[in-house]
Amino acid sequence: MIYPKIPLAQTVIQLCKEKKIKHIVISPGSRNAPLTIGFTNDPYFSCYSIVDERSAAFFALGIAQKLQEPTAVLCTSGSALLNYYPAISEAYYSDIPLVVLSADRPKHLIGIGDGQTINQKNVFENHVLFSSNLKLDIKDENNIPDHEELPMMKNIEDKLERFLGFQKNIQTHNEIEINEAINNAIINKGPVHINIPFDEPLYETVGKLTVSPKSEDIVLKNKPIDSYIIQSCLEDWNSVAKKMVLVGVCNPNEVEQKWLNELAEDNSIIVFTETTSNLHHESFFPSIDQLIAPLSKEEQKQLKPDILITFGGLIVSKKIKTFLRKHQPKQHWHIDKKLANDTFFCLTNHIEATPNQFFETLLPKITHYVKSNYRDVWALVKQKRLQKHRQYLAQIPFSDLKVFEVLLKSVPKNYILQVGNSSAIRYTQLFSIDKSLEVYCNRGTSGIDGSTSTAVGCAVVSKKPTVFITGDLSFIYDSNALWNNYIPKNFRIIVINNQGGGIFRILPGHKNSENFDAYFETTHDLSAKHLCKMYGIEYVSAKTVLQIKSKMQTFYSDSERPRLLEIFTPRTLNDEILLEYFDFIT
Amino acid sequence: MIYPKIPLAQTVIQLCKEKKIKHIVISPGSRNAPLTIGFTNDPYFSCYSIVDERSAAFFALGIAQKLQEPTAVLCTSGSALLNYYPAISEAYYSDIPLVVLSADRPKHLIGIGDGQTINQKNVFENHVLFSSNLKLDIKDENNIPDHEELPMMKNIEDKLERFLGFQKNIQTHNEIEINEAINNAIINKGPVHINIPFDEPLYETVGKLTVSPKSEDIVLKNKPIDSYIIQSCLEDWNSVAKKMVLVGVCNPNEVEQKWLNELAEDNSIIVFTETTSNLHHESFFPSIDQLIAPLSKEEQKQLKPDILITFGGLIVSKKIKTFLRKHQPKQHWHIDKKLANDTFFCLTNHIEATPNQFFETLLPKITHYVKSNYRDVWALVKQKRLQKHRQYLAQIPFSDLKVFEVLLKSVPKNYILQVGNSSAIRYTQLFSIDKSLEVYCNRGTSGIDGSTSTAVGCAVVSKKPTVFITGDLSFIYDSNALWNNYIPKNFRIIVINNQGGGIFRILPGHKNSENFDAYFETTHDLSAKHLCKMYGIEYVSAKTVLQIKSKMQTFYSDSERPRLLEIFTPRTLNDEILLEYFDFIT
Repeated sequence: MIYPKIPLAQTVIQLCKEKKIKHIVISPGSRNAPLTIGFTNDPYFSCYSIVDERSAAFFALGIAQKLQEPTAVLCTSGSALLNYYPAISEAYYSDIPLVVLSADRPKHLIGIGDGQTINQKNVFENHVLFSSNLKLDIKDENNIPDHEELPMMKNIEDKLERFLGFQKNIQTHNEIEINEAINNAIINKGPVHINIPFDEPLYETVGKLTVSPKSEDIVLKNKPIDSYIIQSCLEDWNSVAKKMVLVGVCNPNEVEQKWLNELAEDNSIIVFTETTSNLHHESFFPSIDQLIAPLSKEEQKQLKPDILITFGGLIVSKKIKTFLRKHQPKQHWHIDKKLANDTFFCLTNHIEATPNQFFETLLPKITHYVKSNYRDVWALVKQKRLQKHRQYLAQIPFSDLKVFEVLLKSVPKNYILQVGNSSAIRYTQLFSIDKSLEVYCNRGTSGIDGSTSTAVGCAVVSKKPTVFITGDLSFIYDSNALWNNYIPKNFRIIVINNQGGGIFRILPGHKNSENFDAYFETTHDLSAKHLCKMYGIEYVSAKTVLQIKSKMQTFYSDSERPRLLEIFTPRTLNDEILLEYFDFIT
Repeated sequence: MIYPKIPLAQTVIQLCKEKKIKHIVISPGSRNAPLTIGFTNDPYFSCYSIVDERSAAFFALGIAQKLQEPTAVLCTSGSALLNYYPAISEAYYSDIPLVVLSADRPKHLIGIGDGQTINQKNVFENHVLFSSNLKLDIKDENNIPDHEELPMMKNIEDKLERFLGFQKNIQTHNEIEINEAINNAIINKGPVHINIPFDEPLYETVGKLTVSPKSEDIVLKNKPIDSYIIQSCLEDWNSVAKKMVLVGVCNPNEVEQKWLNELAEDNSIIVFTETTSNLHHESFFPSIDQLIAPLSKEEQKQLKPDILITFGGLIVSKKIKTFLRKHQPKQHWHIDKKLANDTFFCLTNHIEATPNQFFETLLPKITHYVKSNYRDVWALVKQKRLQKHRQYLAQIPFSDLKVFEVLLKSVPKNYILQVGNSSAIRYTQLFSIDKSLEVYCNRGTSGIDGSTSTAVGCAVVSKKPTVFITGDLSFIYDSNALWNNYIPKNFRIIVINNQGGGIFRILPGHKNSENFDAYFETTHDLSAKHLCKMYGIEYVSAKTVLQIKSKMQTFYSDSERPRLLEIFTPRTLNDEILLEYFDFIT
């Protein structure tokens, strides 16, 4: 096998392997050549070459999000690295283990006017779990870097001995740092940054490894929940008749169905789920906005829970956030191993456990249900809303809202559904979707900047086929997502093209003025057609429900190339139809 | 006139105006609505709407680079901001005054799980001159933010007085911070970050300004150079027969021609310029690599200067860097008001002055030239090389090298020439260009990430027409540069499409292996054609010298739309032809 000659490169590669980092997304460069050579020559690794680092990092994010395994991105020195930042911040807020490997110049070549050189040290400090700045290998006793203090030495033996000492120190330092960084990504689920200096020559290879770094193993074990915490929870649980469970972003199958079924049995519990929650029960309340948007003040008071229990990642629904901030429960428990956001300014309890752990400790202890009509009352409202929802959808003209109804019904079972920000996910939330679908959306930062690349990365490592639904601005923003050779031919993209940022028309801006069109909605008349032509993607378009239904008959069928459906909707109607929707369903 | 109701937004806008920030590049968002409304409703400002923040920031960089005036970029909260980072780092290393305005949520809504919220405070710390974190306006006495310590108060009068005190403190704090940030950008030429929290409602407007912030004026005056420094320089200058002047990136007309003419008179001086130096004299030595690449060891020793004088920004030529690190002069003076890089590890003197100041202080004091044949000897070598250069170009087949010869000759006089990284600028440096051209290239970080957007920004504010020459990877990387409504119809783009990163074939990699093609050269068969169709740009292509010459006859003529010429060159020949060039001209 071929290995890079530089020991530090060997160390990084071997430790990535020991830690089971299998997928490496590489952007071209020279400074990172030792690692590129090493990773791509070792069949253990699946490597991907993606030129635009912004897209590369989101692609890796999609892999890590789907597999829930640490995934590496590798780039050269300079501004290249900075293009990773949007994906790093998404990983940070979505608890995704992204391992950033950046090649760097040796310290003595930084800040002296060399090309492609920036201050890479700790550059992502605000949004990584750990920053590791490795030290340059010492090549020989005449080449001890300036940053190692070197006292005067009497003779050559001394010098050699010191050199070996320094060399060992540096190797040990680097091993510890790499172990700590990757272990951190795995244990605490999030992005870490390993900055790796290499000196020339960069392209030399050897046939045998010359170093064998030690991997610090980790044992991933859940700490049991203290019994006094459970006891206290139990008492509160049994004493209130209104318990609301609100679930944010969850991975598919993250929570066992049997606990969900138990929650569904209890009349004193309302479970609000989002599309991104990936959990389902007919007694739960998806489409939160549909339920709460039209509530009167009196009804809002009735819905206010005594205890709020939350788990999962960030919440999409702004309306539930506003509601709970206004009608704060007496208690708010958040269940998460890592962190509890005080989203509603009334957090009382951070239960440091997984939802499964919490439910399996608490639920078996519950011997009787508190008498309550909490859920039944709202189940009736839900039914009424659903009926109105159907009525409204049946009568409205062609629009974003109508399109989402048709699209979400048509996604075949067992697909992965990737959804873009920001209108796309909000519309999706108004419909119930088939429970066999796995749903993903970048809600950590809710950016429009990398959704397509994320969906492509997910599709590449997923056994199930993936469909991605997105808006036009987000799609064009991340058009470089199509610039790689890995898009599976069963990948499907649906672009809802409403000629701008339709979401701004919903907000209280001064719409239909020249300034509004240009600087808020940013209207345009672009199409995805030419990008499809450029990147070899089959293109179809539709402008009516009938056309969509007709295209849908073959859209998901086998194909030699990925397919994209672009749906043009009437820009100036969409917002009115959505706003009227919430009036109508009251 | 319409103003945003929020006083802080009024403050930012008024101070930008006072500081003569005229150009504001805005990306759509809601949190930044108060500023967007304010800037776009005031006819003083020229506003631009660009969706992709990465492109927006490079567009602004192009404006600031051309005008040498502070230019602002404005975006919403969340990952949007992080997309500015590549352009910010370029501004940092290229001394370009880029004023980053980021809207943020109020402090109490950060880190609690709200959408589009990240840790924006000091997020660009490694690469800005100044980070300013403004404080939220206090709306009324019941609404004093948590971050202001508020002791218990006896009565309402007390409370109101305290409130007015707090309000004034916050306004003063914000005024000082904004003044300091923008003044820093102007005085020290570089990027600054102003992070601006806004609370809802965001879209309210008023007809009259309610605050009038005070602008701290600055006087830009060059400190005279101490006479003992000049005296010391003069003695050294007069005592050595080999003085080398090496010029990096300079703005057009930055150095007065009369000083250059004086330098050109002196036989003891060799002036090495780069294409990015924007200065010309027939006795100078452009195309540094052409001269020094083929030097024997003996010749290298002869060329070694006694004193090296440098000014301007970063140096493109790797060969001169290698040469001067190996053959270090006894003295290296760098002339720059701000900073002196020790690029060759032999810096002895940082003269804190502009080149004009230095020359006008030193040169009139020089009464006689030191007897020397330094320049004459090398002028002969230069002539020989040029002859060989012409011979070689006359005999080679169609290739990148040949294409650059044809292209650079064909650029009309008085154009602005924007050049992409990294092959594009390196090839350009091998040819002399007409002195009426103004040349720009992003050499601060030498990234391929934003050259097109920079060129577009430059073209928008420039009275002269702009042509941009770039490689295929760099062009596709930044294809969102075309996604805006401001590209002037006389803008011209030339893409040299060698189907990948041709520069990697010059480096000591293992070319023509599968891994090399995929992960280093990243070969592809894409064309700019479809992007042109998408964005309404006239497209022409060429595959031979004859075709280029034929297209060139009308390429620069008046047109209704911008034009792009794509030239396809033979990927596997280009590197051999370039490498043989350096052998041939020996």
